[in-house]
Order: sequence, then C-alpha cells, then structure tokens
Amino acid sequence: MKRAGIIGGMGPEATLDLFKKIIKNTPAKKDQEHIPLVIDNYPQIPDRTAFLLNRGEDPFPYLLESMKRLERAGVDCLCMPCNTAHYFLEALREQTQVIFISIVESVLEDIIKSDKEYRKIGLMATDGTFIGKVYHIPFEQKGLKIVDFNNDIQRKIMDSIYTLKAGELTKAVNIFNDVFVKIVSEDYDCLIAGCTEIPILLQYVKVDRKINIFDATESLAKHVVSYCLNQSVG
Amino acid sequence: MKRAGIIGGMGPEATLDLFKKIIKNTPAKKDQEHIPLVIDNYPQIPDRTAFLLNRGEDPFPYLLESMKRLERAGVDCLCMPCNTAHYFLEALREQTQVIFISIVESVLEDIIKSDKEYRKIGLMATDGTFIGKVYHIPFEQKGLKIVDFNNDIQRKIMDSIYTLKAGELTKAVNIFNDVFVKIVSEDYDCLIAGCTEIPILLQYVKVDRKINIFDATESLAKHVVSYCLNQSVG
Repeated sequence: MKRAGIIGGMGPEATLDLFKKIIKNTPAKKDQEHIPLVIDNYPQIPDRTAFLLNRGEDPFPYLLESMKRLERAGVDCLCMPCNTAHYFLEALREQTQVIFISIVESVLEDIIKSDKEYRKIGLMATDGTFIGKVYHIPFEQKGLKIVDFNNDIQRKIMDSIYTLKAGELTKAVNIFNDVFVKIVSEDYDCLIAGCTEIPILLQYVKVDRKINIFDATESLAKHVVSYCLNQSVG
Repeated sequence: MKRAGIIGGMGPEATLDLFKKIIKNTPAKKDQEHIPLVIDNYPQIPDRTAFLLNRGEDPFPYLLESMKRLERAGVDCLCMPCNTAHYFLEALREQTQVIFISIVESVLEDIIKSDKEYRKIGLMATDGTFIGKVYHIPFEQKGLKIVDFNNDIQRKIMDSIYTLKAGELTKAVNIFNDVFVKIVSEDYDCLIAGCTEIPILLQYVKVDRKINIFDATESLAKHVVSYCLNQSVG
C-alpha cells in the first residue's frame, strides 16, 4: 500500500470533501485497510484566480513549500484538490521525483472511459481555471470541446464558490441553485464539477432532469485509491 | 497563527470528523483565515483496544512514527482524534518538545467550565479506554465520578463502534440507537462521547429527552483552534 500526499486547504472544505471521497472509495472492512494519507491543509496558499487575474500574490512558492513538506513526510504520490492550482501542475512536476496525480487528467480519463460522445461539455469552474486554460488545453488535445458559459452564468458560479469559501453555505447554495437551473436549460451533453467547491454545492441541488455530471474530486479520489492499493505493500 | 499536527486514521472517519469540527469552529471569512493543519492519516496503527486486552500488536511505535513525521513537517502542536490512544499520551509527551493537546483534558476542562454539578457521568467509550483508565484517572483527580455501564450496554457500544469502523453505517446506527435508549433510561447527569466514532453515530440518533452530551472530538477541535489562533503569527 502506498501513502498519498495531499496539497490541501484550497479551501479546507474541498480538502475535507476529497478526504471523505477517498475513504468512501476504499474497500476497507477495518481501519487498517484504509490508505495512509498525509494531508497538508495549508489555507494560506494565496488565491489562485486572483493571481491569474494579475490581482494577487503568486501561489507557486506556497504550493512548492507544501509539496516539499509532503515529500519530507515520505509520501509516494501527490495530488491537490484545487482545479485552478493545476495551472501550476507541470511546474510542480518539474520540482519532484514523486508521481503527481492530476485532477484534470483523472476526470478526463473518466470521461473518455465512459465511452459516450460528448459534443458540448460544460465546465463549472473558477475564472482562473478558464483564464489558465487548465481544462481547455488537455481536453482539446483529446479532441474534446468545452463550450464556455455566458458571462452572467460564469459570474454567478464564481459568486457561489466564493460565498461558500466565506462559510455562508445557505447563501452559496441559493446562488448556485439559481444558476444551475440556467445551466441545465442550455442543453449540455455533460457537465464537469471542475472546482472542488462545486460538488459541495451540488449536494444541495435538486437536478431537474437527467444530466451527466463528472465530479473531478470524485475522479481524483478514485485514481488516488487505485494507485495506492494496486502497488505492492510499502 | 500556529500549525496543528493530527495523528489520525484511528479510524479515518473519526479524523474526518475532527477536521470538519476544526473548520466549523474557525471564524474564517476566506480560505486564508483557516488554520494550517498537517493530518497524518495512518490507519495502519494497530488497534488500541486489542492491545490493551493483550490480543494485539503494540500501537506505540506507530504512534511515535506518526508523531515524528508530523514534527518533521514542522507542526507547532499535536493532537490525536482517538480517545483510547490517549493511554499512550504521557509516553508520547516524553518523546517530543511539541505541545500535545489531549482530547481527555479538553473535554474535562469543558465539563468543569460548564459549572454544573455532575454526580453521575456516563462514558461512551471502547473497552480499551475503560481498561486503560484513560478517563477514570484524570477525572478522579478532579473529583469527578464516571459510573460505568453494565456489561450488556458496554458490549453493544463496542459492537456499534466496530461495525462503523467496518463501513456498515446503517447497521452501526441501529445497534447504537437500541443501546442509547437504554443508556438514557439510566438517569445519567451527563454523557461523554469518549470514542471518536460515537459523535458520528450520535448524528443519526433522536434523543428522547434532554441529556447533556459532551462530544470529546468537538472539545478537542475547539481547544486546537483556540491554541492555533491565540498565538502570535508563526
């Protein structure tokens, strides 16, 4: 069994959600069959979107610091439950020998494996994820097209994410509920919960009609569990 | 702000519960105001109760390994969301310079602060916590009396804890619900959720009448938050 390291705290609720999903996706009948994890919940990492909009401090040195802390703790693989932070993925990979499991590559693999033709993919994510082309580049490389929402929808998604980060769950859910109705009416073939705060909001939403939603956090959890269990006992 | 280290994985669900309660008890309006944590989720730590019943491997070397991993990660204080593991608290404290916040001392302080006279205190905990006198000794030093349950109740509490650890939530809740009715009928002045799996089960229980319950995990979370926030910025 391998030990996974989590660069977390972006936000803490999203890290909690990944932790929960790793536990849920582990076929354990007693404590000792669960995966060893080191979670570096480091909420002081500066806001990723603010930086990509040229409005904030560079989070990269903090991400690197967290990665190095996890390396010292002896982790066998790395991941980070923050989609926007994946803008820095390749730069982080260049600084480590440890395998880094990407949330974007995890959900991309799950979408391809689902073996359906998705012509209109919607991405519920931060402005930073759009600006940084965190999803657009790898998806286009696989011939998959993300169709952006209009500005009004995107603004409300951002609003719901930052309201949740401020600890105002009920208000965040209300904002998200309103915008989700609009998203569903726009005939997307599937949606990606491509910000780790989105699955938390989705729990409270009543989906009006069948729409395929890929939860990037869930995909990441499954890929981490699979990597940690399939390896020889460490 | 100080960084807290959590010796976790005993079980993972209990560690998740502490993490959730630390977030909930932090007055943060954005990610960056949350507390930095390093969580060492190490479920391979051998069963504490089994050891105290002379039936299993000694968990101490594993607890020490986890504590040293957290020290290397640079934490400013330590805690562990497992009451039974507090049998080893003083032995761990002897091996570190880092302040170790005790779950037992946290809830004991909260009970004393509540300024009510509790003559009959019930402790919902593992057999290991009873055998190791993890609560009995510090409580008696403060003049507080824990009145043990009868064998039938204690056996069912253990059963619910280990059924939850096996991932069978519904079954665990049913067992716990049955025994909780019996506990409530026995006129305790207050109850301590003194095993970190108990608050998870308590969420699903409809309490029939008013009974004061002290959640040791919640007490620990509050003490950790208070320690990390009250200190000068680190």
